[in-house]
Amino acid sequence: MSFRVAIIGAGPSGLAQLRAFEAAEKQGVELPEVVCFEKQADWGGMWNYTWRTGLDEYGEPVHASMYRYLWSNGPKEALEFADYSFEEHFGRPIPSYPPREVLWDYIVGRVKKGNLRRFIRFRSPVRDVAYDDASGKFTVTVRDLTNDHVYSEVFDYVVVASGHFSTPNVPDFPGLTKFPGRVLHAHDFRDAAEFAGKTVLCIGSSYSSEDIGTQCYKYGAKEILFSYRSKPMGFAFPEAFSEVPLLLKVEGKTAYFKDGISKDVDAIIICTGYQHHFPFLPDDLRLKTNNRLWPLGLYKGVVWEKNPKLLYLGMQDQYYTFNMFDAQAWFARDVMLGKVNLPSLEEMQADSQTYREKEESTISASEDIDFQCGYIRDLLGLTDYPDFKPEIMAEQFKEWKHHKEEDVLTYRHHSFRSAITRTMAPPLKTPWMQQLDDSLDAFLANN
Amino acid sequence: MSFRVAIIGAGPSGLAQLRAFEAAEKQGVELPEVVCFEKQADWGGMWNYTWRTGLDEYGEPVHASMYRYLWSNGPKEALEFADYSFEEHFGRPIPSYPPREVLWDYIVGRVKKGNLRRFIRFRSPVRDVAYDDASGKFTVTVRDLTNDHVYSEVFDYVVVASGHFSTPNVPDFPGLTKFPGRVLHAHDFRDAAEFAGKTVLCIGSSYSSEDIGTQCYKYGAKEILFSYRSKPMGFAFPEAFSEVPLLLKVEGKTAYFKDGISKDVDAIIICTGYQHHFPFLPDDLRLKTNNRLWPLGLYKGVVWEKNPKLLYLGMQDQYYTFNMFDAQAWFARDVMLGKVNLPSLEEMQADSQTYREKEESTISASEDIDFQCGYIRDLLGLTDYPDFKPEIMAEQFKEWKHHKEEDVLTYRHHSFRSAITRTMAPPLKTPWMQQLDDSLDAFLANN
Repeated sequence: MSFRVAIIGAGPSGLAQLRAFEAAEKQGVELPEVVCFEKQADWGGMWNYTWRTGLDEYGEPVHASMYRYLWSNGPKEALEFADYSFEEHFGRPIPSYPPREVLWDYIVGRVKKGNLRRFIRFRSPVRDVAYDDASGKFTVTVRDLTNDHVYSEVFDYVVVASGHFSTPNVPDFPGLTKFPGRVLHAHDFRDAAEFAGKTVLCIGSSYSSEDIGTQCYKYGAKEILFSYRSKPMGFAFPEAFSEVPLLLKVEGKTAYFKDGISKDVDAIIICTGYQHHFPFLPDDLRLKTNNRLWPLGLYKGVVWEKNPKLLYLGMQDQYYTFNMFDAQAWFARDVMLGKVNLPSLEEMQADSQTYREKEESTISASEDIDFQCGYIRDLLGLTDYPDFKPEIMAEQFKEWKHHKEEDVLTYRHHSFRSAITRTMAPPLKTPWMQQLDDSLDAFLANN
Repeated sequence: MSFRVAIIGAGPSGLAQLRAFEAAEKQGVELPEVVCFEKQADWGGMWNYTWRTGLDEYGEPVHASMYRYLWSNGPKEALEFADYSFEEHFGRPIPSYPPREVLWDYIVGRVKKGNLRRFIRFRSPVRDVAYDDASGKFTVTVRDLTNDHVYSEVFDYVVVASGHFSTPNVPDFPGLTKFPGRVLHAHDFRDAAEFAGKTVLCIGSSYSSEDIGTQCYKYGAKEILFSYRSKPMGFAFPEAFSEVPLLLKVEGKTAYFKDGISKDVDAIIICTGYQHHFPFLPDDLRLKTNNRLWPLGLYKGVVWEKNPKLLYLGMQDQYYTFNMFDAQAWFARDVMLGKVNLPSLEEMQADSQTYREKEESTISASEDIDFQCGYIRDLLGLTDYPDFKPEIMAEQFKEWKHHKEEDVLTYRHHSFRSAITRTMAPPLKTPWMQQLDDSLDAFLANN
């Protein structure tokens, strides 16, 4: 097939796109020329741990927000690939909440089975994408880090799979300039051991804040404060944890919160989320959105409505992750292969608006989960990605939320049944708080 | 005058360029249309302190490598502007080694006197520069951070004044991935208080390493190790300091050095310098060099030989700083105003080669200082920037190096005579180690 596809990023979304093409190839479809541009030296995206923060050895912003000792904060059964189960990968059932290296091994295990590395140019961040109306093609400009060389190539389609948890959203607070201790965003958090014995203030009340605060406690922090803007997380926390209202200012080591509360703290970790950031895209191709379940502008959550040769993967806020990226990538592939007849711009926008209205009508986490489940169900109806029963996973997500409310230190002790293999996961052998070695070897040996 | 000049950066070099144009304007010269693009929200470049590290609130790499409590590590007399003395700015003599805020106040004090802010677009990082052979003009593409908008404009000249101490050079060492403590590059170092009570390993044996290690000690670190690659600094250090050979690997908290030395450390600060990094420039316009006194490719250290409409300021390794940038900016201005007749490419390259051979023949720091002094003397002969007697400053640099060898904790107690006003600086009132408040107010009140 004589056209060219550029995929930006070789993380879970970009790899899903490669896997989707591979699946078509196995069915005898002739593939377009696919080039996947990856900034890092290896695949796996966010799951590629690095000790580096800020800028990497080439002066490029470090992609990973991944930290040491991270364990999955949701059951692995709810992110399982429909075409590659955990049991197939590890040869036996493993507990529901594995640490980072186990998930990384699983993600790259699937793509290693295929001949996918041939498509990827590593150490190749995309610097610019320009669309030419006359030719109907994209010019993609890339920095070849190895040779310190900038070059451009022409493509018919561009798939943006660069993620949206890499560019931190970092508010300012009065007094941070003179705070005598470390101030960092969650994006730069790496090793909790640094905070042993300290009182740590985590600003934010979502996943990063809860997990990083808990992590610090697990590795010896004395006390954890969570500062919330609108409402506390309300989980059952250990005694050393407390929730305080919004940070107003810092004076010396003293943090002042709304409602007259103050407290001396040793370090401040800003857990206020991430930005959708595409510095390589011009205005008219760039998705601008906050982090939500239904950003507008993307037909079926994937196709850039104003120029359907541009596709985005994984740009939604996420309960579902890996398997949702797969369903999206299969759909994107079929759009590029001409198997999907896209409706008119107006019809696509109307379709997106219907999703948006549904998204805006939800009033609970359970309804949000069901909304995203319904979206995936719709995608599964449009592609030949294996049906993985997202409805089962929706119930698992709801159960998981309940477990967390009961106890943030023990919710990882629960086990779930795989929707793919129907196998029940074995329990963790020792409490999560006592499993300090997060390596794949230790996890498999101990569990 | 009907041409357009883009200046990239409003730090000391970019501001020198604006000041050079202003000086011409005062002499009745009609100015070109000058636009200075600055990434940060304010001017002053590196001297603009921020608590932020990594990426800023717009997802752009943080420019500043500046840290809290930084005091000038060379005598202020050797960086004094020839057209604006410290005495003129502060209304009285001040000690030779002021803290960061004092120098920042001085730099911006000069430009505040003029009407220079009109030229600057803040929050406007340059994303791309392209030269069109046919039109002989540059297209400069800029990200307007305030409005999240990318746009392009056409210019006749481009002045690269974006500095070369912003993009860290960060080597890897075996074991850093599992080191249970903070690992950072000097670029991300902000507040020494974070390291109180700790054993800190500084990797590198140049200015950053010495100054950051000393800073940490001043604010309570227990012990400082400096790891050198080729040779130790050899200064007279206090007892808590030691110099060790190259780091080979880390296992847990234990650092292993060449020659069988090992030591447990709590934090690792990588002080291995910076890269010349211009991600906005294509291959044929991009200066590629290590940090040295004479990079090749720049006629008189300023004019991009292969395309003399492109100019670079401050790209050399530096003994001289602010006043050297001035001399360069005055020369660059005269090139743009057509007052300088540039020789042929071959002649420019031969001239640069002569400098390079001289640079390579130096065998001591003293000779390096004299080399840079001679370069500035040459520039002064080509422009109407006031002669500031760089030869006097060369002797001050040599004296300063000697003071440092005697004692890194007290070299800032010495005083120097201004080459501009001939005034002797008053001594520091209390020892530098005891001056913990580094604010401008405290410095002026206490000294």
